Amino acid sequence: MARAIRLAVIPGDGIGPEVIAEAVKVLDSVTAGSDVAFEKTTFSLGADRYLATGDVLTDDDLAAIAAHDAILLGAVGGVPNDPRLKDANIERGLLLRLRFALDHYVNLRPSKLYPTVPGPLTAPGEVDFVVVREGTEGAYVGNGGVLRPGTPHEIANELGVNTAFGVERVVRYAFELAERRSKRLTLVHKTNVLVNAGKLWNRIVTEVGAEHSDVVVDYMHIDAATIHMVTSPDRFDVIVTDNLFGDILTDLAGAITGGIGLAASGNINPDGAFPSMFEPVHGSAPDIAGTGTADPTAAIGSIALMLDHLGLRAEAERVTRAIEQDIADRGDASRSTAQIGDAIAALARA
Amino acid sequence: MARAIRLAVIPGDGIGPEVIAEAVKVLDSVTAGSDVAFEKTTFSLGADRYLATGDVLTDDDLAAIAAHDAILLGAVGGVPNDPRLKDANIERGLLLRLRFALDHYVNLRPSKLYPTVPGPLTAPGEVDFVVVREGTEGAYVGNGGVLRPGTPHEIANELGVNTAFGVERVVRYAFELAERRSKRLTLVHKTNVLVNAGKLWNRIVTEVGAEHSDVVVDYMHIDAATIHMVTSPDRFDVIVTDNLFGDILTDLAGAITGGIGLAASGNINPDGAFPSMFEPVHGSAPDIAGTGTADPTAAIGSIALMLDHLGLRAEAERVTRAIEQDIADRGDASRSTAQIGDAIAALARA
Ligand SMILES: CC(C)[C@H](C(=O)O)[C@@H](O)C(=O)O
Ligand SMILES: CC(C)[C@H](C(=O)O)[C@@H](O)C(=O)O
Repeated sequence: MARAIRLAVIPGDGIGPEVIAEAVKVLDSVTAGSDVAFEKTTFSLGADRYLATGDVLTDDDLAAIAAHDAILLGAVGGVPNDPRLKDANIERGLLLRLRFALDHYVNLRPSKLYPTVPGPLTAPGEVDFVVVREGTEGAYVGNGGVLRPGTPHEIANELGVNTAFGVERVVRYAFELAERRSKRLTLVHKTNVLVNAGKLWNRIVTEVGAEHSDVVVDYMHIDAATIHMVTSPDRFDVIVTDNLFGDILTDLAGAITGGIGLAASGNINPDGAFPSMFEPVHGSAPDIAGTGTADPTAAIGSIALMLDHLGLRAEAERVTRAIEQDIADRGDASRSTAQIGDAIAALARA
Repeated sequence: MARAIRLAVIPGDGIGPEVIAEAVKVLDSVTAGSDVAFEKTTFSLGADRYLATGDVLTDDDLAAIAAHDAILLGAVGGVPNDPRLKDANIERGLLLRLRFALDHYVNLRPSKLYPTVPGPLTAPGEVDFVVVREGTEGAYVGNGGVLRPGTPHEIANELGVNTAFGVERVVRYAFELAERRSKRLTLVHKTNVLVNAGKLWNRIVTEVGAEHSDVVVDYMHIDAATIHMVTSPDRFDVIVTDNLFGDILTDLAGAITGGIGLAASGNINPDGAFPSMFEPVHGSAPDIAGTGTADPTAAIGSIALMLDHLGLRAEAERVTRAIEQDIADRGDASRSTAQIGDAIAALARA
């Protein structure tokens, strides 16, 4: 009995389509001959679509995407400072709109440093951790406002909203993940300054932690966390943090594990009420678009996260092993986007 | 004619008093025989004072401190998770209260990597930049609130406030600094998500930049900035950013330049309406307090920033050179806090 999975594919801008082509190649390879069939619908969204039509993401687009079982996204965003995009904000209108509308409250971002990958740190140790970033609250809610815009008396407010409901569900997810890993959890926040949100995060971590007494809980301010990220990243296993701190910390984590060309992510709705969305952490990199030099590994890693989320554990495992094998085999020779995709696709074939 | 400068000294907690003793030693050394006399008043503030009296910073303390010409602060904060400090928040009640009450709108944090200092990066290049962090606005204003605290329906809000007035004055300072340095300025923000504050920062940088057409202006999202901080920190010269991003970025900057044991800072009120405050970026490090192993270099570097701010250019220069000489001479032998202080004090003597 074949299982059909409806996959919405949003290649996006810049290198997005290039890395997504390879990710799809690997997906096809790992599911070839199996009883799972991915039915793909491609959505042309991003800067090009906006320039052509003036739309970033219409309600119809959103409804159509939401009717799928999962979403694969490349990267969105045009050339920086393109005057024609001045009023667009593709990031808020497309990427963040999807995360919020589809209630992606877990933004899952694993980081692993492979021995063959050159990183910027002299002595990183064994780096293998996961950041569980909250995805639907905090400073990202867009609930601020502006008074007297454009004048010398302008006041621009940004409201960060944190709810017990929202914090508890992501903290629960993080504890469950820690149970399956090394039973160590680090809360990263800035409780000494953001005292309202800080107290809430602390309280929820303490309360949920009481149900997971075998998980050792640690706390770190975000500023100190960036220090440890470059001096002793091996101390981390599961990190749970808010939307903004998670954004910052995962870019840094990508950098210390050899560049965000390798960093995969899942925007997950664990309840299954909405399709989850998988995307590389990197952006659309318009400067290298079309050169065939983008590393598709992060996009392919996002396929592994997607397969795992969909319960296709064996397939997820095969993609992960294929990526690890490919990385281990990497010599100094530079390979094109397609060559890397081909290599991993071949390794992932059953 | 002797010039008398009233200096308020707040040694604080943990290693604070230890590093401040060395900083004062260097200050005395560099001013010995000159016509400047620092008249010091010591204020016992911090966790110990709170535990003894229940006070963090009284209005009388604040008024007394404000009557000085400058402030030297070590570090404040007790042992983490000390239950007796649960309700204190020394950071907000003391450190941030001083910064806000004394209108320290420029938080100046230079970062320099010395060839002899081992850092965590394999190929940092020449690192020598200054972060101009806004000090009186943003997410630090404490203007949030909590609804239904302690319940499953809790909502914890953090309001970040940014004003044209507040942004403009710190941006002006940063451009003026860039004029005196390499004429390169990088704005770090998260304009694609924090659109209200982002638009304001962008507008002001553009407007003030028009008056400084010889300064090349660059923009970077905070997440991308952490990547560049570990992969190509030599690209930075003057960074201007908000209170929270500046907090995060300067800890990371401290880490990549060999640890925050070297990072000095000034909380500056450039208008001179209030005394400016100079402090190492590091905290009170209760774990190593009393061992005599704390590095006083950051505290001594803060003396250099203070002397410069007070117009004592030659003395500031002598302290800076003494620090650089001491760092260059550092072998592998570990020295005590006092030994480092003695060495720099001797080098700084006229
Ligand atoms: C593009 C931007 C809105 C996004 C974010 O801030 O979340 C990106 O940086 C990320 O981390 O996925
Ligand atoms: C102690 C804390 C309130 C402070 C801050 O966040 O500003 C510190 O981290 C700093 O950078 O000086």
